[in-house]
Amino acid sequence: MNKKIPVGILGATGMVGQQYVHLLEDHPWFEVAYVAASPQSAGHTYKDALKNGWQVHGDIPKNVGSMVVEDVASIEKAVKKCTLVFSAFEMPDKDAIRTYEEEYAKAGMPVFSNASAHRHTNDVPMLIPEINAHHLAIIPAQQKKRGWKKGFIVVKPNCSLQSYLAPIVALQHGGYEISDVLVTTLQAVSGAGYPGVASLDVIDNVIPFIPGEEEKTEVEPIKILGHIKGGTFANFKGINISAQCMRVPVSDGHMACVSVKFRRQRPTIEQVRSTWINFKSEPQELKLPFAPEQPIIYRDEPNRPQPKRDRDNGKGMAVTVGRLRPCSVFDYKFVALSHNTVRGAAGGGILNAELAYKKGYLQNV
Amino acid sequence: MNKKIPVGILGATGMVGQQYVHLLEDHPWFEVAYVAASPQSAGHTYKDALKNGWQVHGDIPKNVGSMVVEDVASIEKAVKKCTLVFSAFEMPDKDAIRTYEEEYAKAGMPVFSNASAHRHTNDVPMLIPEINAHHLAIIPAQQKKRGWKKGFIVVKPNCSLQSYLAPIVALQHGGYEISDVLVTTLQAVSGAGYPGVASLDVIDNVIPFIPGEEEKTEVEPIKILGHIKGGTFANFKGINISAQCMRVPVSDGHMACVSVKFRRQRPTIEQVRSTWINFKSEPQELKLPFAPEQPIIYRDEPNRPQPKRDRDNGKGMAVTVGRLRPCSVFDYKFVALSHNTVRGAAGGGILNAELAYKKGYLQNV
Amino acid sequence: MNKKIPVGILGATGMVGQQYVHLLEDHPWFEVAYVAASPQSAGHTYKDALKNGWQVHGDIPKNVGSMVVEDVASIEKAVKKCTLVFSAFEMPDKDAIRTYEEEYAKAGMPVFSNASAHRHTNDVPMLIPEINAHHLAIIPAQQKKRGWKKGFIVVKPNCSLQSYLAPIVALQHGGYEISDVLVTTLQAVSGAGYPGVASLDVIDNVIPFIPGEEEKTEVEPIKILGHIKGGTFANFKGINISAQCMRVPVSDGHMACVSVKFRRQRPTIEQVRSTWINFKSEPQELKLPFAPEQPIIYRDEPNRPQPKRDRDNGKGMAVTVGRLRPCSVFDYKFVALSHNTVRGAAGGGILNAELAYKKGYLQNV
Amino acid sequence: MNKKIPVGILGATGMVGQQYVHLLEDHPWFEVAYVAASPQSAGHTYKDALKNGWQVHGDIPKNVGSMVVEDVASIEKAVKKCTLVFSAFEMPDKDAIRTYEEEYAKAGMPVFSNASAHRHTNDVPMLIPEINAHHLAIIPAQQKKRGWKKGFIVVKPNCSLQSYLAPIVALQHGGYEISDVLVTTLQAVSGAGYPGVASLDVIDNVIPFIPGEEEKTEVEPIKILGHIKGGTFANFKGINISAQCMRVPVSDGHMACVSVKFRRQRPTIEQVRSTWINFKSEPQELKLPFAPEQPIIYRDEPNRPQPKRDRDNGKGMAVTVGRLRPCSVFDYKFVALSHNTVRGAAGGGILNAELAYKKGYLQNV
Repeated sequence: MNKKIPVGILGATGMVGQQYVHLLEDHPWFEVAYVAASPQSAGHTYKDALKNGWQVHGDIPKNVGSMVVEDVASIEKAVKKCTLVFSAFEMPDKDAIRTYEEEYAKAGMPVFSNASAHRHTNDVPMLIPEINAHHLAIIPAQQKKRGWKKGFIVVKPNCSLQSYLAPIVALQHGGYEISDVLVTTLQAVSGAGYPGVASLDVIDNVIPFIPGEEEKTEVEPIKILGHIKGGTFANFKGINISAQCMRVPVSDGHMACVSVKFRRQRPTIEQVRSTWINFKSEPQELKLPFAPEQPIIYRDEPNRPQPKRDRDNGKGMAVTVGRLRPCSVFDYKFVALSHNTVRGAAGGGILNAELAYKKGYLQNV
Repeated sequence: MNKKIPVGILGATGMVGQQYVHLLEDHPWFEVAYVAASPQSAGHTYKDALKNGWQVHGDIPKNVGSMVVEDVASIEKAVKKCTLVFSAFEMPDKDAIRTYEEEYAKAGMPVFSNASAHRHTNDVPMLIPEINAHHLAIIPAQQKKRGWKKGFIVVKPNCSLQSYLAPIVALQHGGYEISDVLVTTLQAVSGAGYPGVASLDVIDNVIPFIPGEEEKTEVEPIKILGHIKGGTFANFKGINISAQCMRVPVSDGHMACVSVKFRRQRPTIEQVRSTWINFKSEPQELKLPFAPEQPIIYRDEPNRPQPKRDRDNGKGMAVTVGRLRPCSVFDYKFVALSHNTVRGAAGGGILNAELAYKKGYLQNV
Repeated sequence: MNKKIPVGILGATGMVGQQYVHLLEDHPWFEVAYVAASPQSAGHTYKDALKNGWQVHGDIPKNVGSMVVEDVASIEKAVKKCTLVFSAFEMPDKDAIRTYEEEYAKAGMPVFSNASAHRHTNDVPMLIPEINAHHLAIIPAQQKKRGWKKGFIVVKPNCSLQSYLAPIVALQHGGYEISDVLVTTLQAVSGAGYPGVASLDVIDNVIPFIPGEEEKTEVEPIKILGHIKGGTFANFKGINISAQCMRVPVSDGHMACVSVKFRRQRPTIEQVRSTWINFKSEPQELKLPFAPEQPIIYRDEPNRPQPKRDRDNGKGMAVTVGRLRPCSVFDYKFVALSHNTVRGAAGGGILNAELAYKKGYLQNV
Repeated sequence: MNKKIPVGILGATGMVGQQYVHLLEDHPWFEVAYVAASPQSAGHTYKDALKNGWQVHGDIPKNVGSMVVEDVASIEKAVKKCTLVFSAFEMPDKDAIRTYEEEYAKAGMPVFSNASAHRHTNDVPMLIPEINAHHLAIIPAQQKKRGWKKGFIVVKPNCSLQSYLAPIVALQHGGYEISDVLVTTLQAVSGAGYPGVASLDVIDNVIPFIPGEEEKTEVEPIKILGHIKGGTFANFKGINISAQCMRVPVSDGHMACVSVKFRRQRPTIEQVRSTWINFKSEPQELKLPFAPEQPIIYRDEPNRPQPKRDRDNGKGMAVTVGRLRPCSVFDYKFVALSHNTVRGAAGGGILNAELAYKKGYLQNV
């Protein structure tokens, strides 16, 4: 590639937007060319527009720090400046997000969204590239139905399911069908954004409730595991998932304590383990820049994975699994972990865009 | 009662021993008259013998602070000075603990133990007074078999199951039989004693492993729920329990995320809730000093129970439950919490002794 | 006293307001008869008006939970219902607070304020009862100047100086004059209210800045140490204080690392220690309910005071000091600690009111 | 350089030893060729010898993981395998450490030590390369006096002074002489090694005591600032330092709250700031691999430096300073931060070795 693909970030001043800016620094294919936020931020440099400061690691990349923030409503500027946009909106009004994403798509922009607004729109793929890369095939139908030429919308699922779903799907792919999943998640505070969770709530404490999180954790997988039928997604009916989502005093890294039941015969411990270790998928074959070499890492030590010590595995894009052992009620239990603000947010969105690019869905590149 | 019953504490300088000293200050029935520890501590005042300092709340009660620590081997002194002993041994050698407890019982001392050494001895009751007070009835058989006159051994179960077992048993008592339980515990660091868990392991982290804890959490309930048959305990066969035990950055208070399946028809949410709220048992009827007025407290707020805000409910002796909701795999899920160093350790031991006293098992009082 | 004195709380739904409600439960002299907050809260029961929930220990006292919240502007209702008010306003608009407090005083209400609005009003006493109880003597002048009959305003100082000022003043009273003080405070997150400090800012971190805090810590003592002259306060000129204020991952308890220089000869370690231990003042002599029996507690252990283990000393009203040792630059260094939401907030306000009552400043009781 | 210099690590299995292994992975000049520890560890592979596991970031470098650990007493093996050794001993017996380091030096090994045993030996340089690189000039005298040929000993100072000493020395170098320093340090738990500080001591708490730390913080700088006279070091007499050292719930990163008094006229804020920003020293001029490009980074934001966000600056080798402001007792106050296990431990030792190599003190390379 001679020249990098210019990309935009919508909601660039929020915490997820900052993660996009951070992770796209030195990206081999993409470069940030457009940052947009609310009218209040518009007109300021990116650096000055960060009212709560820079929340992510390191410093603001210099070129973005001095970029002028645009009003998200000035779509025509985005069209001139960039080839695709990442939607990192964090505002509570989902209807507004939905509309913005559609407007950008209508104007010709491929939109890769981190927001939940379009996750259940039935012609919008909800993508984890290692799991359902083939869902991108719905894009032509999406464009046709909506009269969009080059634009489209792709979303990523919630961070809470990133740790446990890949290990389950790897087993399904390996021929070991799972019928029931009980999962308790121990989630990091960064999942709530900034300022997010009050320190008085997590010092020496656990909060047993995250609004809306258990529903997302249970429902989103059945779309991801579904198939395309007549231009829309049909949910997968073959799995039951129940989730309890807890907030723990950890900055980054969502952990999941999982119990699974197989539909038919259960594999041996060694079969499960080797299925995970050998799991590779399209992002690995395509050598996408953000694809971890090994999507599922298994640690044999009895006390792993741990958020602090394993969240950065695979540059924050790998799932780390451990403690595989028999379950006296179901078949097996294990613990899985992923980085909620990398794989579970901006990193996941970037991987989606890489996949779409490599598979030829970006028409104007 | 005119005069308080003199009691002893074995392993008095450890963290559980300190909790006994703390909780027995101003006890209406009992007063500490004997503190014993290893030969190294013997001969020093209690205050000076605490090599890691006083780890529990407030100050060392003055009368105990100046008491001379005895060698645990000098059983004859205990016999002279006190009527019953609490065993708070924390040494790794379970055989040694087992032997000491038997020696004290043989010498005529009722022993109320916090240690795990005798939990699976088949004529030793493992007691949670609200659940299986009737198991004390094995004492005559225990004494007869072993040739003990007035002494006997009673143990309490592990702290990790104190939060979830009472709510389950309350439902069983209410006629709602539970067949399967999947539980993930989020346990406080005080459960590992002092110095216990390294701070580098819990700052910004969760440790997904506590040696031996999951086994105890799964196995001990089936003895507690069992019955006496021919002078020994027969385990309960009607329930399957699977546990995942996590260590979280919380000082005190074990939380359990529980999913339950009923054997037959499931009760309504309101039936479950009212069964819990109305649950009372023998300790409440006998008005034992350490019995919480309401053994199971239900909180309706969506984000409770929390360790920091609920562990002290009922002076640390109540179980607090919340978040009762349907489960898409089993029938219901809920979150339960109890104070691991009060109800789950010394407080539980004291309640056992109160029960035994009130029910007439202390022959020399 | 046959009947308790009815008191009101302004800004009752905030975190400081909740602390007042909590600490006044079972107060021997006062009882809450009036709770007021912003117009949005008015008309709801106190329980329902707490939009962030009950943040302090235990449960909402039942009688207050069901009390209807009044609009703070309806002063005439306060006049009918209560004899004095505590001002616990937390709104950013200091002018509005100043005006409200004056309106209540004008209407005949003694106002005991936790807010900073009137701290530097030159006829308003800023009180720590153990230090400057005699400053209450300005009240007649304050009333005369403003044309108030029975009402007046008394404030308490910032929480950050409560830990170090009493030990310094005790030495001054003992004849050991201090000329220079360098203090670094390690402050708990509860000092910022709720939601206050973001958890992402304090997990595995320290924040070296608290807006406005260092100024308050340096300036307020010179008024407290000052004297009344011609109906206003003249600042004390004899002491230089420099402060660095840090926010640490602690829920409650402000710690201060103090270095002091004496103006003339320095006392011995033993003289300093015994001066502190023997320090008593008017609140102790008057046996005020919230006065700690021993206002300054000295701990000899090398690793005390600690926030978690010492903040509740004297029911949260005592200052705990330790680590007194020579300083190679000044004369001595030591570490001091006080509970920032008890002594440093509501508890301090209550003690002020107790003092004013006992000394006869409440005319209509 | 064609071939890397083979280096050894003494006490390689401890936490500091692990840091050396970690930081030396991919070092451009050095490669680990010898790992030694106590007789109990000897004979096992490095990976198996880590009884508390791998405590530092990432994974054990593969080549070292499979290396066989030698007994530290088998010095002749070190002589065969490597050119210099890093001493990372953490055992409490300082005499033993002192003897080992001397034995290795006597056998011809340059020893770069992290231990405190030889810090006050009067012919051993205690080095911070940016501050006193010229102290290496004592090596010939050290060798001559002790009859050593090629071996010698160089130590690094304690981690607690790394954050505040460079900013002070930079000012001295700039012509602004400082006479008095009062410093309060807020130190991370990793400074105590593993398991080190108990989690019960730091959850929701601060410990106001670290044994021996304040003495080191006050005394070591006067040797570092001293000069060589007649083959031994003469301490610097021109500065008074007083330290209070606190342990806070932070994993890595020591923070220092500093107040300084100038001997003569004080510089302006801008002069101080620019002196820091422009400070460069020999390690920068020599382009040593571990030398941070900018040894002192100044952050203008009001709430920086912070341990979590600034400890990794300059790959953990830079000091970050902020909050420079006037002090009402001395002249200025500021906050400084450095990474205690990188700059303050293994990274500092590596930089010392790089300096000695580049300046020609390694005779057999």
